[in-house]
Amino acid sequence: MKNLDTICSISTPQGIGAIAVLRVSGKEAFEIAGKLFKEENDFKAQPSHLVKRFDIYENEALIDQAMVVKYIAPKTYTGEDVVEISCHGSQYIQQKIVELLLQHGARLANAGEFSMRAFMNGKLDLPQTEAIADLIESQSETAHKLAINQLKGNFSARIKSLRNQFVELAALMELELDFSEENVEFADRAKLNTLLSTLKEEVAQLTESFKLGNVLKTGIPVAIIGKPNVGKSTLLNALLKDDRAIVSHIPGTTRDTIEDNFNINGINFRFIDTAGIRLTDDEIEIFGIERTFKAIDKADIILYMIDINETTLEEVEKELLFLENEIDFIHKKLIIVANKIDQLNELPKHFTDWVEYDIAFISAKRNVNIDDIRELLTQHIDQKNITDTTILTNVRHYDIMLKIEETIKQIENEFAQKLPTDLVLIHIRTVLNLLGEITGEITTDEILGVIFGRFCIGK
Amino acid sequence: MKNLDTICSISTPQGIGAIAVLRVSGKEAFEIAGKLFKEENDFKAQPSHLVKRFDIYENEALIDQAMVVKYIAPKTYTGEDVVEISCHGSQYIQQKIVELLLQHGARLANAGEFSMRAFMNGKLDLPQTEAIADLIESQSETAHKLAINQLKGNFSARIKSLRNQFVELAALMELELDFSEENVEFADRAKLNTLLSTLKEEVAQLTESFKLGNVLKTGIPVAIIGKPNVGKSTLLNALLKDDRAIVSHIPGTTRDTIEDNFNINGINFRFIDTAGIRLTDDEIEIFGIERTFKAIDKADIILYMIDINETTLEEVEKELLFLENEIDFIHKKLIIVANKIDQLNELPKHFTDWVEYDIAFISAKRNVNIDDIRELLTQHIDQKNITDTTILTNVRHYDIMLKIEETIKQIENEFAQKLPTDLVLIHIRTVLNLLGEITGEITTDEILGVIFGRFCIGK
Repeated sequence: MKNLDTICSISTPQGIGAIAVLRVSGKEAFEIAGKLFKEENDFKAQPSHLVKRFDIYENEALIDQAMVVKYIAPKTYTGEDVVEISCHGSQYIQQKIVELLLQHGARLANAGEFSMRAFMNGKLDLPQTEAIADLIESQSETAHKLAINQLKGNFSARIKSLRNQFVELAALMELELDFSEENVEFADRAKLNTLLSTLKEEVAQLTESFKLGNVLKTGIPVAIIGKPNVGKSTLLNALLKDDRAIVSHIPGTTRDTIEDNFNINGINFRFIDTAGIRLTDDEIEIFGIERTFKAIDKADIILYMIDINETTLEEVEKELLFLENEIDFIHKKLIIVANKIDQLNELPKHFTDWVEYDIAFISAKRNVNIDDIRELLTQHIDQKNITDTTILTNVRHYDIMLKIEETIKQIENEFAQKLPTDLVLIHIRTVLNLLGEITGEITTDEILGVIFGRFCIGK
Repeated sequence: MKNLDTICSISTPQGIGAIAVLRVSGKEAFEIAGKLFKEENDFKAQPSHLVKRFDIYENEALIDQAMVVKYIAPKTYTGEDVVEISCHGSQYIQQKIVELLLQHGARLANAGEFSMRAFMNGKLDLPQTEAIADLIESQSETAHKLAINQLKGNFSARIKSLRNQFVELAALMELELDFSEENVEFADRAKLNTLLSTLKEEVAQLTESFKLGNVLKTGIPVAIIGKPNVGKSTLLNALLKDDRAIVSHIPGTTRDTIEDNFNINGINFRFIDTAGIRLTDDEIEIFGIERTFKAIDKADIILYMIDINETTLEEVEKELLFLENEIDFIHKKLIIVANKIDQLNELPKHFTDWVEYDIAFISAKRNVNIDDIRELLTQHIDQKNITDTTILTNVRHYDIMLKIEETIKQIENEFAQKLPTDLVLIHIRTVLNLLGEITGEITTDEILGVIFGRFCIGK
């Protein structure tokens, strides 16, 4: 445990609430916090993990009656001595207590500094601390599930197992170097090759999972395209409004800030733009073609919206043919949304018989069959898969995985060219280091700065 | 202690933070909260006031690793069994835990319901619970000090002492009624009159203090008036900017939402409008006269701003004479702000010799002598007075005090007219009831509804 200075911060969201919580951590946490209280000796005698009321004073002026807990190291979040102060949630009181703590010798914590200390004191490994930042940010069931899985250490365990296999490989090859004059091969090259391709496969599987992991975290990008006045905004509102209504019945959890995100069965979707498109009968004329192509390009799912009263199947097929010639639709899901069915007595047979695409017949205005779209959207995601397999969600991990893939390719080449063992070992060690960077077994200040900068203050 | 249902809510400010705190209170608090945890039996065995980590599950899915405290009644905030759950501050997690608590039988708490239970279980009297709402809202040192004083019970003690004197008065008169046929006077009428005027004086003093108490709480209203381009906005910015800078160095305490409030030596000032005014040499022509008069009318302090390079003392005197004819300046403080002194080599003698008004010579643009204005603004308030005397800050209390004043007048009249004791006693009892309404010794659901509706959820 390093001998670090004492940090403090407000750990609850900013603003006014019934209560707010401040945290102090470090070797002088008890001494500094103790100075807030007239009953300083009571505080000294206070056992760990017990809540007790203390009155906070600035000179002779009572600032607040607070509930205070002493957490005696090492059984604390940071691994250091920690004090938690629950005060009345006035901004004045929160600010005043911070000021007093600073006066008595604490320092304002940087973003993520409490978690960084937890990591440095071996309370959490690096992917677990990263999971905490994800957990705090999580807005949907899926994002939450991914973060919880990572917090439980599943991902770390998998990376550590990968690394152990590499260590074994490297050890055998190091041994060869010691006996290089005798020209023995301790490491069976055929076996090594097998191990290498197993590892390669595992890494490829993780990098492949990142695309899913990333969209699950930030929201699956959905584009609604269609001609003007086809009902795109009405559909968007229908999808958003319902979600808002579900969320807003619990005070304190309003999601108004995330304007264009919505949640279906715990999966987060994100509208990237609503793009207009116009294709006439004879010539291909696209309205706002740049914007439309960009929206489609960024989307994983495309809701292609038509006014069923004003479009023939032939027109639709022609438009789709044009789009598919222009844009790469591999890995994208296209859903046809036939809107304004409230103006029809019967659904047109040529559309209902159409099997080439998923199609939903709706009335956005009358809120008819909007659930069909929800159903089609969520089919895109294999829910079970999310729980059962390890999914890469972190850009930092992804970047390292890509470097590992690259290095494995080099190693394979070197094996193929039968280069000397000492040259190959350089790259084997690179892979070991890269895997160590993920788990935090190998760190630099730069890496830590990037990771903990993502945190909110007070964690 | 009433047998009430179990309530829950998020008690920390809404939004995302490192941690959030949820509270559960009521006879089934332990049973309901216990169902969140796999280690339900450990939770049952958990002693009061001890923090322990519990994992929160929804079926088999881990929702969060939380720190949980059981507070066993009656030594709790509400006087009931209370559970406090500190979870990771993700909106999803907060919402999920509330959902689980509701599923297991808790109900969402109304605003102030925790404090209402504290009152009903005799943990706090009514002015003290009202002080908690004020404390949470307090944004300045003075507002905070007033709330803390009230929380300490000073105000309640004073009201209770008033009430006791009335009780004594009433008791003696009741006694007379019992012996009414014998026509004795237990209560010495001269003594009664003395007591009555003492009480009247005390009530008058409290109602008088309300004006100060109210402006201290909401901010002392200040109007800046003057001709266009005299530098009103520049001065406003100079006053606001400095205050912002002081506050903004502590994260989580930004005051950006309170656009036109600023703080000098812990006293809150509030700009009610910046009003333009134009008075020419020969005729009185006022620019935006309605708006100006309204601003002046609402203000306690008026900063009358002039461009010292473009105005003569005679003009200023003429303008002030006009204003004082139009508006009642009693109880208002007028400060002359002579701006743009940076364009002068020397201050004009006829202005510096002027003693009729407080005057500050400044340059708003160059930030010169802004402290002189601060000094003049705070002189308006007697700081010592705030700490040492009881100041009425609550509109509800003020309204009741006004009714008491009214009733005392009636009693005095009745005494003067020598009306029968039983008639006078009706009004004495009214005063007793009114005082009881303040302290909460006499309550109705309506009163409680108004009081606790002011609270934020979770307190």
